[in-house]
Amino acid sequence: MSQWVYKFGGGSAEGDTTMKNLLGGKGANLAEMASLGLPVPPGFTLTTGVCTYYYDHGEVYPPEMNDQLEQGLAYIETLTGKVFGATDNPLLVSVRSGARASMPGMMDTVLNLGLNDETVEGLAKLSGDRRFALDSYRRFITMYSDVVMGMHHHTFEDILEDAKLDAGYLHDTQLTSADWEGVIAKYKAAVRDTLGRDFPQDPREQLQGAIDAVFGSWMNERAVVYRNLNDIPAAWGTAVNVQAMVFGNMGETSATGVAFTRDPSTGENRYYGEFLINAQGEDVVAGIRTPQTLTKEARLNMGEDAPSMEEALPDVYTQLAAVFAQLEAHYRDMQDIEFTVERGKLWMLQTRTGKRTARAALKIAVDMANDGSITTEEALMRIEPLALDQLLHPTLDPDAARDIVATGLPASPGAAIGEVVFTSDEAEALSKAGHKVILVRVETSPEDIHGMHAAEAIVTARGGMTSHAAVVARGMGRPCVSGAGQIRIDYEAGEFTCMGRTIKRGDTVTVDGATGQVFAGEVSMIQPELSGDFALVMGWADAARTLKVRANAETPLDVETAKGFGAEGIGLCRTEHMFFEADRLAHFREMILANSEDSRRDALAKILPTQRDDFAAIFRIMEDRPCTIRLLDPPLHEFLPHTEADIETVAASIGVPARELMARARELAETNPMLGHRGCRLGISYPEIYEMQARAILEAQAIVAKETGTNPIAEIMIPLVSSEKELEILKALIDAVAADIGVSDYTVGTMIELPRAALRAGRIADHAAFFSFGTNDLTQTTFGLSRDDAGKFLPDYVRAGIMDKDPFVTLDQDGVGDLILIAAERGRATQSDLKLGICGEHGGDPASIDFCQRAGLNYVSCSPYRVPIARLAAAQAAIRAKG
Amino acid sequence: MSQWVYKFGGGSAEGDTTMKNLLGGKGANLAEMASLGLPVPPGFTLTTGVCTYYYDHGEVYPPEMNDQLEQGLAYIETLTGKVFGATDNPLLVSVRSGARASMPGMMDTVLNLGLNDETVEGLAKLSGDRRFALDSYRRFITMYSDVVMGMHHHTFEDILEDAKLDAGYLHDTQLTSADWEGVIAKYKAAVRDTLGRDFPQDPREQLQGAIDAVFGSWMNERAVVYRNLNDIPAAWGTAVNVQAMVFGNMGETSATGVAFTRDPSTGENRYYGEFLINAQGEDVVAGIRTPQTLTKEARLNMGEDAPSMEEALPDVYTQLAAVFAQLEAHYRDMQDIEFTVERGKLWMLQTRTGKRTARAALKIAVDMANDGSITTEEALMRIEPLALDQLLHPTLDPDAARDIVATGLPASPGAAIGEVVFTSDEAEALSKAGHKVILVRVETSPEDIHGMHAAEAIVTARGGMTSHAAVVARGMGRPCVSGAGQIRIDYEAGEFTCMGRTIKRGDTVTVDGATGQVFAGEVSMIQPELSGDFALVMGWADAARTLKVRANAETPLDVETAKGFGAEGIGLCRTEHMFFEADRLAHFREMILANSEDSRRDALAKILPTQRDDFAAIFRIMEDRPCTIRLLDPPLHEFLPHTEADIETVAASIGVPARELMARARELAETNPMLGHRGCRLGISYPEIYEMQARAILEAQAIVAKETGTNPIAEIMIPLVSSEKELEILKALIDAVAADIGVSDYTVGTMIELPRAALRAGRIADHAAFFSFGTNDLTQTTFGLSRDDAGKFLPDYVRAGIMDKDPFVTLDQDGVGDLILIAAERGRATQSDLKLGICGEHGGDPASIDFCQRAGLNYVSCSPYRVPIARLAAAQAAIRAKG
Repeated sequence: MSQWVYKFGGGSAEGDTTMKNLLGGKGANLAEMASLGLPVPPGFTLTTGVCTYYYDHGEVYPPEMNDQLEQGLAYIETLTGKVFGATDNPLLVSVRSGARASMPGMMDTVLNLGLNDETVEGLAKLSGDRRFALDSYRRFITMYSDVVMGMHHHTFEDILEDAKLDAGYLHDTQLTSADWEGVIAKYKAAVRDTLGRDFPQDPREQLQGAIDAVFGSWMNERAVVYRNLNDIPAAWGTAVNVQAMVFGNMGETSATGVAFTRDPSTGENRYYGEFLINAQGEDVVAGIRTPQTLTKEARLNMGEDAPSMEEALPDVYTQLAAVFAQLEAHYRDMQDIEFTVERGKLWMLQTRTGKRTARAALKIAVDMANDGSITTEEALMRIEPLALDQLLHPTLDPDAARDIVATGLPASPGAAIGEVVFTSDEAEALSKAGHKVILVRVETSPEDIHGMHAAEAIVTARGGMTSHAAVVARGMGRPCVSGAGQIRIDYEAGEFTCMGRTIKRGDTVTVDGATGQVFAGEVSMIQPELSGDFALVMGWADAARTLKVRANAETPLDVETAKGFGAEGIGLCRTEHMFFEADRLAHFREMILANSEDSRRDALAKILPTQRDDFAAIFRIMEDRPCTIRLLDPPLHEFLPHTEADIETVAASIGVPARELMARARELAETNPMLGHRGCRLGISYPEIYEMQARAILEAQAIVAKETGTNPIAEIMIPLVSSEKELEILKALIDAVAADIGVSDYTVGTMIELPRAALRAGRIADHAAFFSFGTNDLTQTTFGLSRDDAGKFLPDYVRAGIMDKDPFVTLDQDGVGDLILIAAERGRATQSDLKLGICGEHGGDPASIDFCQRAGLNYVSCSPYRVPIARLAAAQAAIRAKG
Repeated sequence: MSQWVYKFGGGSAEGDTTMKNLLGGKGANLAEMASLGLPVPPGFTLTTGVCTYYYDHGEVYPPEMNDQLEQGLAYIETLTGKVFGATDNPLLVSVRSGARASMPGMMDTVLNLGLNDETVEGLAKLSGDRRFALDSYRRFITMYSDVVMGMHHHTFEDILEDAKLDAGYLHDTQLTSADWEGVIAKYKAAVRDTLGRDFPQDPREQLQGAIDAVFGSWMNERAVVYRNLNDIPAAWGTAVNVQAMVFGNMGETSATGVAFTRDPSTGENRYYGEFLINAQGEDVVAGIRTPQTLTKEARLNMGEDAPSMEEALPDVYTQLAAVFAQLEAHYRDMQDIEFTVERGKLWMLQTRTGKRTARAALKIAVDMANDGSITTEEALMRIEPLALDQLLHPTLDPDAARDIVATGLPASPGAAIGEVVFTSDEAEALSKAGHKVILVRVETSPEDIHGMHAAEAIVTARGGMTSHAAVVARGMGRPCVSGAGQIRIDYEAGEFTCMGRTIKRGDTVTVDGATGQVFAGEVSMIQPELSGDFALVMGWADAARTLKVRANAETPLDVETAKGFGAEGIGLCRTEHMFFEADRLAHFREMILANSEDSRRDALAKILPTQRDDFAAIFRIMEDRPCTIRLLDPPLHEFLPHTEADIETVAASIGVPARELMARARELAETNPMLGHRGCRLGISYPEIYEMQARAILEAQAIVAKETGTNPIAEIMIPLVSSEKELEILKALIDAVAADIGVSDYTVGTMIELPRAALRAGRIADHAAFFSFGTNDLTQTTFGLSRDDAGKFLPDYVRAGIMDKDPFVTLDQDGVGDLILIAAERGRATQSDLKLGICGEHGGDPASIDFCQRAGLNYVSCSPYRVPIARLAAAQAAIRAKG
């Protein structure tokens, strides 16, 4: 016979904290506390198995359940000495849901269940406080009618308000027993009038109703949507906890409270919480009365007068502090606790691992590791890698006043203040003149790189989390708000309007990239502190991880940043960004417009010296760390102007007829640029471009090696390979350049960013020293999904529950990941020491990094500001892999 | 010790016809003929192994080769009784290349090798004809200097012309021995003057030079390019054949000729060939003298006077006819033969399987199968499936005069005559008025479908073999010339110019889609005869094949055509083509412009009845053959006008402001439409569209079933699935519609056209009754290659030897094929009876069909005119699979 009911209380329990899947989080922790001998009101848990059975069998319960439930009630009755439904000595219970994971949208709590017109009198007698008993009854009717019977709680609030108005009362506390009697009568009448039936008087009917409501709410719409979004299978089910009531509202020696064992905001090792004397839990939440502090120290810090619990209830406080210590020692982590004091007796109602800020997570983990409570590996596992991002950027002072003018997507974290500008040229000019500027554009393109560099932050009206602006800004560590759809930019007037406000060029705004908000004026900021704890944790992470962490960077500033954050090399240096610098762009356009290989070579020769300087600068910074440099990737038309006006300006500036420029732009235009003439296809069509780039790289390497005595190593990477022959031909070209210069310390490898490259990895590995998985493009081609266009319908996909996660943010392990595994296996079958890395946006995503660890990759590469996150995520992945 | 030299002649040989890889085609067949006891001039073959060795060892020969070569010469000397280099009794040899496959670009032949100033006198004495000997010597000098020493043959031609002018001769035959002596002296002087060295007098040096030249030519540029294009590995190498000379120019009892054992044009069982008395082989080729027929019958048929071989050399003719019979019986196929008669003695110089037209291939195969020479399976293997295309379409009369005005790509076979029109509307209007029209456009788009249907043929200035025009025209069986790049169309003037000619609207042209040519005026045509032989072969093919063959078709006309060609079902009915019909396009645009689901449903409701009629028409034709109908696939913007002028016209016609239409078009525009909001993504965003289509299909099925008593079966296909959830959701939607209508005889399946779908096939198979591989899109995404854009750089790829075959024509088995195998394996692991088919362009490509057989697919689907080709290719694939 299956066990559907697990009892707890009186110093023991049938369950424990390991049984979360069966008992839910709340039930498992109540059982655990009971076993630890803590004062837990006795109760029992209906398992998640009941929920699953219920839905698998057309919404009927297991036949044995009722008997077990009766035994559970009997157990509570024995331990409390009260009887469920008895008129003289009534047992009251709470009914609470409790799934494995916290689940908004579900029925939460019913208190005081078991009260009716008769038992309320028993409670009155038992408590010696008739007013308290009637207050409890009216609370029960309100709560039960709302969450179980589906009535709106406003009905009851209105009745109570009317009663207070009639009597001329200001506060609930002024109502007498007689007043409450009248209110209760009206409550019951309202239920009858609205639902056509009486409020249930039978405590067992009440209990069954509450249990039905919890299980029923598992399938309500909000819960279903939440589960879809959070990848929670419906089959997990929820548990129901039935527990003897204890009352914090039985006078001045009663109280209720919540506490964290450490400060969840800073991580400091001191209690953080609040309590209310003579109150039930809901009163704390309702915010009608101001809660008091737990400790005297906290009261003094906050300058409050109302006594702290330490002062008001010293004995119970001492007892509570001991429980805190016991629970922290037992769970070996900071706890989030609910408690009630009933007439001087402490009862524990809940404990769970407390949520915390990144800062607190770091401090708590370090403190607990330092005092030996946990190992450094455990400490590493306690910190959410993505949360570190908060610590690396300035943030807005939470206490500062703010005047919001626009909202978009939190595309790149950090906060910044500056004057609004609308063009990249203006951004650059003003920035050079010492101004701090915020670049506001409808959207950005590669031609805006210099403006984005010059700006403190970027705001765009269009584009998603993976738009050009968002990706580039994250790479640069610039705060960015993208897709602020309500913004209407008038470039000519030099202003934007949003939500009825107009912001002009030169107006100061504050951008919060972490929340996606833009504020008028200056909002005061908090600078990041990369404190000792941070460095300590990074050191532990480096010791634990096996994956190397590199950065995607190409400007000296980004390369410096990456090195500062601990990058062990460059995983992706995008050479095309260099061509967008004004002086080279002109030569590059000259090259594009050239009619012959000779004139292309002439134009490229003008770019060679600056490209060589670019690479030399990178080698100087990175010393002997490896640098993977990708040869030209985007289609040539990206380098030409698009609008007629731009074409005319550019034509004039480079001295060709506008008609000719337009003809070439039209000739190069593509239906699907993503799948067009780009990557190594350019190298095949115009070998002279790749030849120039290879020469610039290898000459720079030779120069820096000689100049500094270090041993810089270029890893030249060929993009968009789909066939081994492409790589074979282009490697031969690079080898010829190297032989000509006399350099031999370099390698040639390839991006694996097309499905065919993954499938042909066995043959491609014949010519490659390394594979770098370009998961951005690999995701686009594997899904047949354009990142630029997907924004229009992905919301429909999320709504339909088809895509839980954006595959451009978190690697699609089932599809794209499968190709990576195939490529890794086939590539290494050919060449067992093939170096494997990843350089897409996913290189900075913890879940994707975990996959890279399991796939046996050698390194991940991510944007500079993601390097610390990747170091921690890689450490966690290595620890998980060992376990 | 390796054997580098294989001897033949005198009734035996060391090699045979199975040794083509080692001896080359020519060498193996010479050996085979010698073994058969046929009169083959004795000789030997230097193997392809020598060539491979030569290039593997830095261009030196195997050390043992020279001895073996001497033994070969000795063998020839023994059999001929002549001595190489002897002044009195000189042996002369020919040197010819001979690779496994015929290879243009290589050195071909040197005749009369061994002649020098002394041996020529020996030859004069031996032949009793000094003039003949000198003539042979001057021919040898010319040929050797040209092909071995690299001199231009014009030098020698000029000398000869001068000599004739000086002497006042008209013909070479007028030159006396003395004249030839003078010419020879001048030839040798020219060699010395040009090359700075004497013409080699040592026969062994001559021989080594010729051998070097053959092996050297294996790596010349033309040969390398040819090999790259034809997928011939360099490692195959070529062989060299050295053979005793025989002379067809030793007087009136000598002759030389070529023959086919059957007519290679019609396949009729009669000799086809020509010969020249007193001539060397090169004279036949040179075309100076008119060759004579072999048989009297042929002479009479051609109305010629010069006697046939049958009449002029009756004994030798009888002997030759016996050889023909022997060779055909031996090789069991029609032979292409070269022979020489030296003073009444017949010598066989070559035999090989003869090339033939499609018509001849069919007739020969049928005749030989019918008389028991070969099996029906062998007969099937003898016919090139693609060649059948010639038999299915009208062709131009080869004898008709023609006046070419434009040349493009042979995009869709067949010939047609009509008046030039420049718009699809005009094509439709004129066609309805009874005119035959040729639609000429810069390029076509889906909006031109009605015009393409109305036209006899389509000509486009832009676009490749897989452009919209080409693909659609092939599907319709319309002749098409695409990418005729020299055509300049002036739509306003209603004319096009090409190669200096102007063709106006209404001018008559003839289009030959098989050659890609357009002619002014009418060129007379030959209608196809799907004769008894054709039907017979198709019957044999159907018996042999295991793959089913379906057609891609949606119009009743195409469906009828497909059925007529033997399609066993519809493999791909593209429903979007139906929306381009004028009446529906308006409603469909109304749907696209609608702001709410309700107004979209209203617009769709107007399309439902016509869609239902469309499907009913198809079901009526196909009876109970299965019909796979794909729900809407292209992005919605394809249905909106693009240019401003079109937008205004359309806006006026459907009664919405142009601004609104333009805004919607802009909103829907995509950066990469191929990877955008299309396929099942539309079904997820706008379920009402798929719901309407499912209803139209299933209601039509129910109506036709009731009306005809047949049992039509709809296979509803969901395009562009990348995740199992998409299919699960859309299948549920279709099932709900079916339940509502009360239809249960249908299945739901999916296209596998994205790499992720192939990888996730195991889970997708949970919801699919069938997979249809959409290899067009699967190729695009696997390669990351847009079919619309690839044309710009694929020529560079072909030049670089990266892509041998267009992956949009012949399935890329290494990459795309690998995904198909993965999907088939994973899908069938979930559901062992999963039906698998292919519906891309590749479904009609024989090499791809062979792959489908090996991959275990159930059917292929191709355009209607490809159905017979696919039936034969499938039969060949099945036969190969058995072997």
